Amino acid sequence: MTSRQDGVWIGFDLGGTKMLASVFDSSFEVIGRSRRSTLNSVSPKKNLKRIVKTIDDALAEADLDRTMIRGIGIGCPGPVDMTTGMVHEAINLGWRDVPVGEWLAGKMDCPVLVVNDVDAGVYGEFRFGAARNSRCVVGIFPGTGIGGGCVYEGRILRGHGITCMEIGHFPIDPGAPARGNGRCHTLEHVSSRLSIAAAAAQSAYRGHAPHLAEHVGTEVATIRSGALRDSINSGDTVIEEIVREAAEWIGVAAAGVVHLLAPDTIVLGGGLVEAMPEIFLNAVSASCHKNLLESYRDTYQVVTAELGDDASVLGAAAWAETEIVNNTTQAA
Amino acid sequence: MTSRQDGVWIGFDLGGTKMLASVFDSSFEVIGRSRRSTLNSVSPKKNLKRIVKTIDDALAEADLDRTMIRGIGIGCPGPVDMTTGMVHEAINLGWRDVPVGEWLAGKMDCPVLVVNDVDAGVYGEFRFGAARNSRCVVGIFPGTGIGGGCVYEGRILRGHGITCMEIGHFPIDPGAPARGNGRCHTLEHVSSRLSIAAAAAQSAYRGHAPHLAEHVGTEVATIRSGALRDSINSGDTVIEEIVREAAEWIGVAAAGVVHLLAPDTIVLGGGLVEAMPEIFLNAVSASCHKNLLESYRDTYQVVTAELGDDASVLGAAAWAETEIVNNTTQAA
Amino acid sequence: MTSRQDGVWIGFDLGGTKMLASVFDSSFEVIGRSRRSTLNSVSPKKNLKRIVKTIDDALAEADLDRTMIRGIGIGCPGPVDMTTGMVHEAINLGWRDVPVGEWLAGKMDCPVLVVNDVDAGVYGEFRFGAARNSRCVVGIFPGTGIGGGCVYEGRILRGHGITCMEIGHFPIDPGAPARGNGRCHTLEHVSSRLSIAAAAAQSAYRGHAPHLAEHVGTEVATIRSGALRDSINSGDTVIEEIVREAAEWIGVAAAGVVHLLAPDTIVLGGGLVEAMPEIFLNAVSASCHKNLLESYRDTYQVVTAELGDDASVLGAAAWAETEIVNNTTQAA
Amino acid sequence: MTSRQDGVWIGFDLGGTKMLASVFDSSFEVIGRSRRSTLNSVSPKKNLKRIVKTIDDALAEADLDRTMIRGIGIGCPGPVDMTTGMVHEAINLGWRDVPVGEWLAGKMDCPVLVVNDVDAGVYGEFRFGAARNSRCVVGIFPGTGIGGGCVYEGRILRGHGITCMEIGHFPIDPGAPARGNGRCHTLEHVSSRLSIAAAAAQSAYRGHAPHLAEHVGTEVATIRSGALRDSINSGDTVIEEIVREAAEWIGVAAAGVVHLLAPDTIVLGGGLVEAMPEIFLNAVSASCHKNLLESYRDTYQVVTAELGDDASVLGAAAWAETEIVNNTTQAA
Repeated sequence: MTSRQDGVWIGFDLGGTKMLASVFDSSFEVIGRSRRSTLNSVSPKKNLKRIVKTIDDALAEADLDRTMIRGIGIGCPGPVDMTTGMVHEAINLGWRDVPVGEWLAGKMDCPVLVVNDVDAGVYGEFRFGAARNSRCVVGIFPGTGIGGGCVYEGRILRGHGITCMEIGHFPIDPGAPARGNGRCHTLEHVSSRLSIAAAAAQSAYRGHAPHLAEHVGTEVATIRSGALRDSINSGDTVIEEIVREAAEWIGVAAAGVVHLLAPDTIVLGGGLVEAMPEIFLNAVSASCHKNLLESYRDTYQVVTAELGDDASVLGAAAWAETEIVNNTTQAA
Repeated sequence: MTSRQDGVWIGFDLGGTKMLASVFDSSFEVIGRSRRSTLNSVSPKKNLKRIVKTIDDALAEADLDRTMIRGIGIGCPGPVDMTTGMVHEAINLGWRDVPVGEWLAGKMDCPVLVVNDVDAGVYGEFRFGAARNSRCVVGIFPGTGIGGGCVYEGRILRGHGITCMEIGHFPIDPGAPARGNGRCHTLEHVSSRLSIAAAAAQSAYRGHAPHLAEHVGTEVATIRSGALRDSINSGDTVIEEIVREAAEWIGVAAAGVVHLLAPDTIVLGGGLVEAMPEIFLNAVSASCHKNLLESYRDTYQVVTAELGDDASVLGAAAWAETEIVNNTTQAA
Repeated sequence: MTSRQDGVWIGFDLGGTKMLASVFDSSFEVIGRSRRSTLNSVSPKKNLKRIVKTIDDALAEADLDRTMIRGIGIGCPGPVDMTTGMVHEAINLGWRDVPVGEWLAGKMDCPVLVVNDVDAGVYGEFRFGAARNSRCVVGIFPGTGIGGGCVYEGRILRGHGITCMEIGHFPIDPGAPARGNGRCHTLEHVSSRLSIAAAAAQSAYRGHAPHLAEHVGTEVATIRSGALRDSINSGDTVIEEIVREAAEWIGVAAAGVVHLLAPDTIVLGGGLVEAMPEIFLNAVSASCHKNLLESYRDTYQVVTAELGDDASVLGAAAWAETEIVNNTTQAA
Repeated sequence: MTSRQDGVWIGFDLGGTKMLASVFDSSFEVIGRSRRSTLNSVSPKKNLKRIVKTIDDALAEADLDRTMIRGIGIGCPGPVDMTTGMVHEAINLGWRDVPVGEWLAGKMDCPVLVVNDVDAGVYGEFRFGAARNSRCVVGIFPGTGIGGGCVYEGRILRGHGITCMEIGHFPIDPGAPARGNGRCHTLEHVSSRLSIAAAAAQSAYRGHAPHLAEHVGTEVATIRSGALRDSINSGDTVIEEIVREAAEWIGVAAAGVVHLLAPDTIVLGGGLVEAMPEIFLNAVSASCHKNLLESYRDTYQVVTAELGDDASVLGAAAWAETEIVNNTTQAA
């Protein structure tokens, strides 16, 4: 007797360039899956309709229809209101105050839980991955920006009407140039993929990173995690220094977070970490340790994420399950 | 019929220079109180015995004996283990790993809850003061160092085996001189009373703060909150700038905390804030607001503490009550 | 009777992408001129021969031959030894310890003075441009990097065997990320064209600079001064903020230089300044003023360069004249 | 036949707490000397008269009268106008625009050269001490503040109407707290004796520097160079870290100065350096080296001053001699 007869949970990851739906049985095994590109420069409704289609396709792959859905968890970029299911602001999508949860619940006729995508990923690692059984886990995911999430005593840590753990906006050297962000210098100025790429482009332009210069060039958009890894492996030592330094500053912010939250587990994930796990694990660990009060130095572990791209869909679905089964949150 | 017949709660505040016991009836009205100096350079046992005497005196003032105690909450400096009642490290007391909870429970024959003193103060403000009804409150108390605490969904936020919210150790300009602390430059380097006093002493020495120079001098230990306030009120504008700047950097760290935790309420307290509430409220508010992402700017309030020195004893007692009545924590 | 009968002075500007020779009569009027591209990835000798050809072409344009040359001044990138005429290191040319002066003097049979190209430009402004009659002028030329030069009491300020005024390497926030430069964070990390372009590329990528994103993109090499100016003029306010902030930090470094050298005149030049003179003049002036001790605030003027691309050839030729006529330096 | 028959040179050092006159024969051997306290809170004229008396006493000790004086060189604190002999601002003396040169020349009926006291000290080291035969020497003298001076090709480097090399006001981490100085964070915020004392006082107060706490305390004014040295020698490792860190930041500023001026010699002097020469020599050298471009790393030496308190009087007298004999400056 398959566990699909108990109904299924849908996990959804809505990204700036692609969207992914997974159908999970009650043991959280994947039994259906579908993927679509996210459209740019269109009205929110166009993409909302694509979400529905993508879910339907994933269900079809599993030979199921909508009636079998027990709940949907959808991870969205930017701060969201988990209670109302509203996406406050998703810059890449051009969204502001889009009632994703309400709309989707109406269309699909089932409970929908909206979460921040990084929170979903951290929750996934907490339930099924590198942070299982942690009382408090903080996830740090350096990518284009730097996402963060926290699961505290089994639940996603959040504010009233807004998600949080925006570790990319941790003020890291507040008096340094803000580069037009209107606020202050933050961790993203140093350690995001975009910032690393910009520093790498300058080094390439100056002739200090010959491999990168030859094979990738000085276009910030194309200097992605894999390009950085290849450059380092080919001997561009200056790029290794840039990446290691960026990781060390993540460690400084991590020390700040340990002083504030004393997590058991810090999970590092995202594209940069996947491409260069050793550099990040070592540099973040060492820098975090060095910057901590003695009493906190043995209170936590730093690990790399285990679930990769599946973390968000798994986490979103599992979050929907726990909230709906326990009736903790009034789902949209 | 007085509520004391329901038994009483003891709140205790163990400071580096003095200790305070208060007896509360079930409505948390004070019905007895006692105070003693804390001894320096003595064995922990000597001060533990003084704690017992001070509690007995407070009970005597209320015409009660130990049998009426339903529970004791004791706020101690430094990181503590709230589960085992162990004080990890209290530098001013010269304590390291002192089992306060266990010892006191044995002596007094009642449940004892050990909390960090700043956590106790923030919990006090949450239950009875400036942060009533907040879903998430963060307290920032600049004093000799800078203490912090957080009450999240009704409970003190903490780590496994260790308290946290050590906002004084927030890395604020990590590359700046660490001044021998073995880690990095932190909020305490800029905004603690000690740091402000040191900056003020330099200004006085250089002749830029004539009132302070004349009436207080350049001794860091004697430049306390009141002295700073008087200097400002007498026209030492450079001291006002130093204090305002220190407050602004607290605002920067506060913005970091809002991005991480999205609290409803930030409570400012402690000696500096009590002496100069307007400077701190205005500068912290403005600086925090300026350094936040748009989406977070209207999600919280900044207030000053209402309970003054009573916050810790009230909070410790009320924490004991809630934990014991709800049996949430296994009290020592 | 034309002043060319007194013989002529050659000014030469050797850049990373192009080289320029000008023939000046004794009144420093241009009477011949020639230009060539600089070859990359070739032996130094190939480019040295191109230098000779370019000078010969310029002479031919003036209907003169080599016998009329009284002296050659050649501005070269990077630190040079003005006494021996050795170029220590010219990264863009791939040169290290190339004896330009000796070689050229042998070929052309006349005295050759080798100077740093920015020094030459500042000397040009001192003799003929915006800094005429200054007792001490400091030039700051933000470009790909940031060049500096100083003329002190009529002579180029320099070290023993090496030129100096490397203001781009002024340590501006030493604890901030060094980005793989092996030293510390410097003015070039904030205010060079390359650094501004990298910050602008990130803003464009994030969607905060729509005009730049659409018309130029996120390729660091193509975000040049004109592109930045156009972006600002088209309403990309975040780019304006980035540029202004970069200029303000130049002002901070300028304040440091005023405290050290107390120049009469600070000349701002180079591509960024030519494209956006008002932003630079205003922001550098204001920031420099703000960061100065009272006593130094009225001791200097900030001006923009007047001679544009001609500054270096003019300055190199005029330097050759003064040194040869006065026999101050033993020319190579 | 003694060289005193050629007339004598007077060197004078006007400090905030004491004044010193030395009579030198033409070989710059001391043949008379006198010392007096400097009065505080009196009119400039009172101290000017004490200067005259002190010189007369020194002459008397040498059995000479005023007619034998060939010239007086007087080193004064703060920026001075070397041409007019005006002291712009001497904070410790409460002086502003005092015409020392003119007044003293009138009283003593001889040429008087007014120089900045640190410039005088550096000139002394250049002529007779650790920097003999240097083409360009930069002196860095960390004391209550941090003084600097430069002798370039035999003459004191200076501005028009104002002395310079104010290295204490080098912007070292401009975005860090300015502590009420109205400008930005500078080298003096980190590395002056006053700043080190303030950091040390905080460590003592916190119990991290037990020897300093017991023997000196937390009074900034009394934590002088000798007290810091004794604390380090007695095992206060945190004080050693504070001092070493301060010295390293002097090295960062020194690297900035090398990039700007390329001196042959950097002389370290002043009370802190005299008390702890090894710490300063090693830390400044290492930090300066690390922060330099490769091309500059072998271009200079770092040395400690040799002349101690005599540097200023010697330098002032020798400067008077060279200027008067060469008639370079129109002496007051």
